[in-house]
Amino acid sequence: MAKPPTVEDVARIAGVSRQTVSNVLNSPHIVRDETRERVQQAIADLAYRPHAAARRLRTRRSSTIGIHLDPYSGGISGVILDRFVHALTERASERGMRVLIYSARTADEEIARLGDLVDGAEIDAVVITGTFFGDPRTGWLLERDVPFVSFGRPWGGDDVYRPAHTWVDVDGAAGTRTATRHMLATQGARIGFFGWPPDNGTGDDRERGWREAMTDAGASGPRFEAVDGLANAREVMSAAFAEPDVLSELDALVCVSDSHAVGAHLAAADAGRRHLPVIGFDNTPVAEALGISSMEQSPELVAAAVLNLLMGTTGQAVAPRDRDAPPEHVLVEPRLILR
Amino acid sequence: MAKPPTVEDVARIAGVSRQTVSNVLNSPHIVRDETRERVQQAIADLAYRPHAAARRLRTRRSSTIGIHLDPYSGGISGVILDRFVHALTERASERGMRVLIYSARTADEEIARLGDLVDGAEIDAVVITGTFFGDPRTGWLLERDVPFVSFGRPWGGDDVYRPAHTWVDVDGAAGTRTATRHMLATQGARIGFFGWPPDNGTGDDRERGWREAMTDAGASGPRFEAVDGLANAREVMSAAFAEPDVLSELDALVCVSDSHAVGAHLAAADAGRRHLPVIGFDNTPVAEALGISSMEQSPELVAAAVLNLLMGTTGQAVAPRDRDAPPEHVLVEPRLILR
Repeated sequence: MAKPPTVEDVARIAGVSRQTVSNVLNSPHIVRDETRERVQQAIADLAYRPHAAARRLRTRRSSTIGIHLDPYSGGISGVILDRFVHALTERASERGMRVLIYSARTADEEIARLGDLVDGAEIDAVVITGTFFGDPRTGWLLERDVPFVSFGRPWGGDDVYRPAHTWVDVDGAAGTRTATRHMLATQGARIGFFGWPPDNGTGDDRERGWREAMTDAGASGPRFEAVDGLANAREVMSAAFAEPDVLSELDALVCVSDSHAVGAHLAAADAGRRHLPVIGFDNTPVAEALGISSMEQSPELVAAAVLNLLMGTTGQAVAPRDRDAPPEHVLVEPRLILR
Repeated sequence: MAKPPTVEDVARIAGVSRQTVSNVLNSPHIVRDETRERVQQAIADLAYRPHAAARRLRTRRSSTIGIHLDPYSGGISGVILDRFVHALTERASERGMRVLIYSARTADEEIARLGDLVDGAEIDAVVITGTFFGDPRTGWLLERDVPFVSFGRPWGGDDVYRPAHTWVDVDGAAGTRTATRHMLATQGARIGFFGWPPDNGTGDDRERGWREAMTDAGASGPRFEAVDGLANAREVMSAAFAEPDVLSELDALVCVSDSHAVGAHLAAADAGRRHLPVIGFDNTPVAEALGISSMEQSPELVAAAVLNLLMGTTGQAVAPRDRDAPPEHVLVEPRLILR
């Protein structure tokens, strides 16, 4: 592309030295008024802008946040992370920050990519997603003293033991508690839960909300489980509904995801019950299209909270060890969207 | 964060001057073997990396591609652009390029954002999406001589008159032609089309494929139209199906989008015909969940084609005026996914 004007071009047009142009840019008070005005005129005429890379070298700041973009996996629920990235980009832009996305297939690959970006001073801060128990990324980021916030809890001890790990997450248990209470109030006492297999932080948390609401009400209901994926969820529930009385005795079902909810809805229809009340999780376009109620995670609120934690009120990303207040953990409460 | 090692650190450890380190990095052949090895050892020991911003200053290259991320609009079809961004990030990463995303609500706002990024040498190249007739972004990019490729045709004269505008698009007409021929071969001669209102480049193109396939077969069928959105599509088709014989005489329906297809499918079911054959466009999770056939756009192939056009075989983004071959226009043919 055409080379943008340089400081030398400005100097030539203004009839001054390169150093004088630099002085006008960095210490205007030491330059005589008449000279300063001539240089400023040349800067305006040429539409010269100090080069970002030069500014970056001086400041060691890129004003850029890095975020991993998962390989597209298809399916119903992937839209939540995309909504989060959209919202993060908009909010970051309002604060004069840029967002750089990178791909990686494993946590180790992600650490390697982050190493390149941090070494090259190409990013100032990182937002990590898809945290899991024993996640090596958080330890690496803390060790390298890179400012970061995760969308998702550490799901281990380290939210307590490593208070430098700042995170924002959706309060899954609060969501399923709301869903279960709504079903208890409107459908009957026998509310089932359709979850993921246990030992999954997010899934266990969502199941806990259902269990607590049922216990509070002195009610009980069956628990079903399936790994993610609509076809699998439908198959599991079809098998469950083939047992005597399972479907007829069920008042409603609270589900860990929209693909579980859609699978259960279709399996119930296959078994002759067209309108089994179900509530999903994620409020995806699929739930909307089928008229299925769901918990809305509000990834836009998560993005706003992540940026608040990352940038604080200073407008600059702050490394964990430079914080003067303990890091914060924010839970965003999901909303029930009834259909 | 902890400062990375500098060229001065390397010089001190190796016991040489800063200039010698620079020579080892940039012109190793002029440095004596023994000295070069000592410097290389110091570089390895310190895990020193030449600073990206410094490299960028020397080369005026950022190895970064900018792409606009639309505000999230919800709905069924938004997933296509997200899939494209995912795939672009992965492919770019394989070629050592980074992807920087920015937000903008209008074409003019996008031009302002691009101006900042290009002036600051923060991006080398741009991928634009959502092209429209009279799009001011392409003219601006050509004038500034910024390498760019659009996902989407200009939908005006300028793909002919401005050959510098390189684009990749999905061959919508080929897709609906395939869909219509499949319906003619399997369902009967009366195949309808459910499209967007006219004077929309993408929509007119998709309608043309249906019309041509019908003319070729000597067949005819009704045309319906609705603006985007599932609820609206369903309402329009419910009204159409309330007229005598419209639904009963229809053998099948080819649709401009999955939200149109789902709306028509639900409206037909409401009117008592549970399995009106429909084919949508975009192969979204919603179509998959409902078992509705759809045209798959393969945004992953579009992303690969965009990068090939942008980077060529040289591995560097090339400005329009520096191309030695005429720019290319690539149409990716969608595939019919039958359910």
